[in-house]
Amino acid sequence: MGRVTVRRRVTRIRDGVVSHRPDTLAAEEPMEIRVGSRPLTVTMRTPGDDFDLAVGFLVSEGVVHAAEQVASIRYCAGATSDGGNTYNVVDVVLAPGVKPPDASLERNFYTTSSCGLCGKASLEAVRTSSAWSVTRDPLRIGPEVLTALPDRLREAQRVFDSTGGLHAAGLFSATGDLLFLREDVGRHNAVDKVIGHALRAGMLPLRRSILMVSGRASFELVQKAVMAGIPLLAAVSAPSSLAVDLAAETGMTLVGFLRGTSMNVYTGAERLQPQPVG
Amino acid sequence: MGRVTVRRRVTRIRDGVVSHRPDTLAAEEPMEIRVGSRPLTVTMRTPGDDFDLAVGFLVSEGVVHAAEQVASIRYCAGATSDGGNTYNVVDVVLAPGVKPPDASLERNFYTTSSCGLCGKASLEAVRTSSAWSVTRDPLRIGPEVLTALPDRLREAQRVFDSTGGLHAAGLFSATGDLLFLREDVGRHNAVDKVIGHALRAGMLPLRRSILMVSGRASFELVQKAVMAGIPLLAAVSAPSSLAVDLAAETGMTLVGFLRGTSMNVYTGAERLQPQPVG
Repeated sequence: MGRVTVRRRVTRIRDGVVSHRPDTLAAEEPMEIRVGSRPLTVTMRTPGDDFDLAVGFLVSEGVVHAAEQVASIRYCAGATSDGGNTYNVVDVVLAPGVKPPDASLERNFYTTSSCGLCGKASLEAVRTSSAWSVTRDPLRIGPEVLTALPDRLREAQRVFDSTGGLHAAGLFSATGDLLFLREDVGRHNAVDKVIGHALRAGMLPLRRSILMVSGRASFELVQKAVMAGIPLLAAVSAPSSLAVDLAAETGMTLVGFLRGTSMNVYTGAERLQPQPVG
Repeated sequence: MGRVTVRRRVTRIRDGVVSHRPDTLAAEEPMEIRVGSRPLTVTMRTPGDDFDLAVGFLVSEGVVHAAEQVASIRYCAGATSDGGNTYNVVDVVLAPGVKPPDASLERNFYTTSSCGLCGKASLEAVRTSSAWSVTRDPLRIGPEVLTALPDRLREAQRVFDSTGGLHAAGLFSATGDLLFLREDVGRHNAVDKVIGHALRAGMLPLRRSILMVSGRASFELVQKAVMAGIPLLAAVSAPSSLAVDLAAETGMTLVGFLRGTSMNVYTGAERLQPQPVG
């Protein structure tokens, strides 16, 4: 791979003093996801874990929810006019009987409800298209497990240390152990890579697990967690109103501003139980 | 409007102590952009400045570049089954003779080059579709003008202060005066709102102006600045590799890690000139 970071010369100005030095940047390249050779979407992503990204995107969109629904994944050769392979086009072949995504829906995922376009319709669309319910997920954890996660995520983010430019998503066990971490210039891609990896490992639904993200919690990130059956999403920064609404609607626990020994619990606080003494 | 922020009850846990209080969240709602009644895209955005957002998106995609190319903009009534208006569907009617966006391109903007899907093709697609060139833009500014911008952006971000959840984009004059600021849960939306407002005010191309964003600089943000003719993009955090490549290709000045009295200049450093003495 070797394309996660790229070196570039940079002019640094500090207190009016000009210097030149090499700098490490997070790589960004377009990737097209095809399903059965039909183009579905293009995302700008950090190269690496591309098959996970493609499959994770399909989980988020409700196309697949189990490893056996994917027949094969490959880079398309011949993507360029001279027949070369840019490693930027990934084709997913679905197993027989798995319904391919409706191309007319792909960009308008939130408009499938009869009530037109509104937040309520968006919530409904996710709830009815998810293969899993997290409502009765038995996850119960102490807040001290959660407060340990940001440091563990950062420790594992070696690439972030060198570029300062990557979003991270980490999947943790109920005891706070990091299962795996993915990074990307796009926050949604980092989460798709985590979920795609889990699907390919036969781990869906991700019951009793925790997804932690380095930035904010948007509607889209809660949606992705719901579609993978994850009962708890924790973010370093703020959630949006619709992220909170979707978490409430689906029974997910949503934690924001997870910093130091402090956190805000927006929904599903019953899953956070103080550690029993003794 | 009054929907930029939303109040929600939150459980706060700090050092194991649980309390309950109201919290202010950034509002997020889906918005569909239509062109001549045909659905083009859906974006999750913070309500407010919706017409600017719709038009700015069309500038970014190369559909319009002047105010007179837009005949009218309106919210679609009848978006819900009972004929109500959700204020989440905006229809832009183009002036006679303006070519509407090709629906098959809309999601695959980066794949229009013959060389298949790669970063180089993405750069080429933006360069050839922009109505303006910033290569010979006469902007010359002292670094001390730039270092004053982050504080001015933050001062103007009153909403950010209350939610911690909004990206900001500010357009500044060559002397560092804030022309206008827009905020959104999506960084790309904040920039589209700025550019759309400028187009409607007849200000395009935005020569001798500076766009400052609160987060990272991705390919997409550089693209939007290029399409509006902005010669300098400054970001608080890191750019991606492809953002730097696009800035270099188009002759834009790209500044990252603009913090305190320090900055990294990735391209177009010749525009930053020390203040003449006396």
